[in-house]
Amino acid sequence: MPVLDPLPSWNDGPAKQSIIAFVEKVTKPGSPHFVPVPERIAGKDPTVKERQPFKALLELDLKTLMGLGKQALLELVFTTHSGMREEEFDPIARDWLAKAKHPKFGRLFKQCTFQPQLELLKFLREKSFKTYIVSGGGIDFMRACSEEIYGIPREQVIGSSNKLRFEVNEDRAGLMKLAELNSFDDREAKPQNIALHVGRRPILAFGNSDGDLAMLRYSKTGKGPRLALLLHHDDSEREVAYDRGFRLSPLGEALDRADAYGITVVSMKRDWSIIFPTAS
Amino acid sequence: MPVLDPLPSWNDGPAKQSIIAFVEKVTKPGSPHFVPVPERIAGKDPTVKERQPFKALLELDLKTLMGLGKQALLELVFTTHSGMREEEFDPIARDWLAKAKHPKFGRLFKQCTFQPQLELLKFLREKSFKTYIVSGGGIDFMRACSEEIYGIPREQVIGSSNKLRFEVNEDRAGLMKLAELNSFDDREAKPQNIALHVGRRPILAFGNSDGDLAMLRYSKTGKGPRLALLLHHDDSEREVAYDRGFRLSPLGEALDRADAYGITVVSMKRDWSIIFPTAS
Repeated sequence: MPVLDPLPSWNDGPAKQSIIAFVEKVTKPGSPHFVPVPERIAGKDPTVKERQPFKALLELDLKTLMGLGKQALLELVFTTHSGMREEEFDPIARDWLAKAKHPKFGRLFKQCTFQPQLELLKFLREKSFKTYIVSGGGIDFMRACSEEIYGIPREQVIGSSNKLRFEVNEDRAGLMKLAELNSFDDREAKPQNIALHVGRRPILAFGNSDGDLAMLRYSKTGKGPRLALLLHHDDSEREVAYDRGFRLSPLGEALDRADAYGITVVSMKRDWSIIFPTAS
Repeated sequence: MPVLDPLPSWNDGPAKQSIIAFVEKVTKPGSPHFVPVPERIAGKDPTVKERQPFKALLELDLKTLMGLGKQALLELVFTTHSGMREEEFDPIARDWLAKAKHPKFGRLFKQCTFQPQLELLKFLREKSFKTYIVSGGGIDFMRACSEEIYGIPREQVIGSSNKLRFEVNEDRAGLMKLAELNSFDDREAKPQNIALHVGRRPILAFGNSDGDLAMLRYSKTGKGPRLALLLHHDDSEREVAYDRGFRLSPLGEALDRADAYGITVVSMKRDWSIIFPTAS
């Protein structure tokens, strides 16, 4: 009798097989590679789709922003977000997310998630993995939408952060977001922040740019069974195709070294039968 | 028919009543103060008992260390812990915890927890609170014992941290603990680190020193129902009695201002019928 496919939007092929084999290996009781539940940590970099919302928050031209480079863009965003209390940011982000549409896909940004990634997150959680977002984007922005979009609670989001100042005003204590960067969660900072927030090396990581390479290697080279996945945006028809030429978040080194590092490349074009979730 | 007492080691009195009334108010469906599960965040400063292990780790005299002040002590400890890989520290801490006895109480340090606090953590988790440790002690040390001692997983521990360096050696990626302090998790840093790690204001917080006052006020002054508890070590017979004269971790301002800030003082002597768990 056929078992229900946990990843129906993934085409049969090496990427899908490596995921299913890995999860089976680490979760099946009695397996020599069995991993106890508390150690089933998975980290995922959401794609640049979710980072584009910064454009509208800033009301600047997208092309200009893309040319800035990731850290410069983030610093610009953080400057515009500073001078705000911790709790003031969340409703602004939520309000924006409820309305803003992606210019190319004509759907809400928050619906520009990838169906195969949603299936993967669900599959992992069903197998008692604890799933994290590890994003170069602002931690507060990601937290405003992570539960609704990915089913990931705020405390399982790691991202770039401002410094905060503790203040007491009229007997009410709170935190003020400052213009100063606390952490730019990219490259080496990703494993550093995973260690700080989680204190465990993930056994599965999924990235999509050179900014994720340190996280992928950190996850992949721990002891025991490991899976590192790298998404290649190579589907210009259904989504976009980019890699090393994409200045905001280039993918070159990770693609070139994937084989040597034991990283499984996921091709949108080859491995995914559906890209976006069907409208509900 | 009497309901089973969730806090049997707590004497009847204002502290116990305030805890039970608060939990009932925020968890009972239909209550006007009902708090949804994801927002049920509780933060707790473990007492100085768990910080004393640093003494033996350092093999220095306890009285000398106590005179140093908290930050100086921590920096000393961190210096001795640096130059170690992330994964190397954990077995050392566990090994120490498995053997080291408290000089006064003649029991293992890891058994020097407080039965009433263990009951409170259990009670809160049964009511779907997510419980965190927020400690001035080293995050990696607390993580080595938090699951076993408090039933709190590593990723729900916030503490003082070293900076980390990402390194690749012989194709294995890892993190090296540096001598430089990343965060001294005391006073204003506690709410700042809660915001960074959790991204939600706790609705219940429990502290035991002036170093917890910012966290207690941050938790207490959020919107909606809140409970802030302050443990007063005032039982020289069964444990120790100290407050403002204790240089390592003084309790003076928080005690003086507790009433004004709406903080419920928990007296060990008055409120707890048992201090340590009975040997199992």
